[in-house]
Amino acid sequence: MKGDVLRTYKVEGMTCGHCKASVTEEVSRVPGVGAVDVDVASGMLTVSGDVSDDEIKAAVEEAGYRVAS
Amino acid sequence: MKGDVLRTYKVEGMTCGHCKASVTEEVSRVPGVGAVDVDVASGMLTVSGDVSDDEIKAAVEEAGYRVAS
Repeated sequence: MKGDVLRTYKVEGMTCGHCKASVTEEVSRVPGVGAVDVDVASGMLTVSGDVSDDEIKAAVEEAGYRVAS
Repeated sequence: MKGDVLRTYKVEGMTCGHCKASVTEEVSRVPGVGAVDVDVASGMLTVSGDVSDDEIKAAVEEAGYRVAS
């Protein structure tokens, strides 16, 4: 896929498996996103695909969390 | 309601609003349960109605949590 890269974000406020599911679901809906991985313990969100940071940040906020700046 | 009392339980492992929703949903399904209140910060679950401790504990476990002994 053109421009397919892995991007990593630090997400604040995730505490449990439900939080992980919410973020994963919302980020997976972003057009162009391939795979999504969330590690609750570290707060790390990793996304593959051809998407913009702004789109990912918006999806994280839609899920009720925040990407650390 | 006959036997209607408030019972309080300490639930372990709840960390966020999703956890609260899961416990509330599962406990609300127990026959005889009236109102359900969950405070995530303290871990306290309060239930009104004519139900047994065992039924409440089973519902909490069904939701993926545990009542402290």
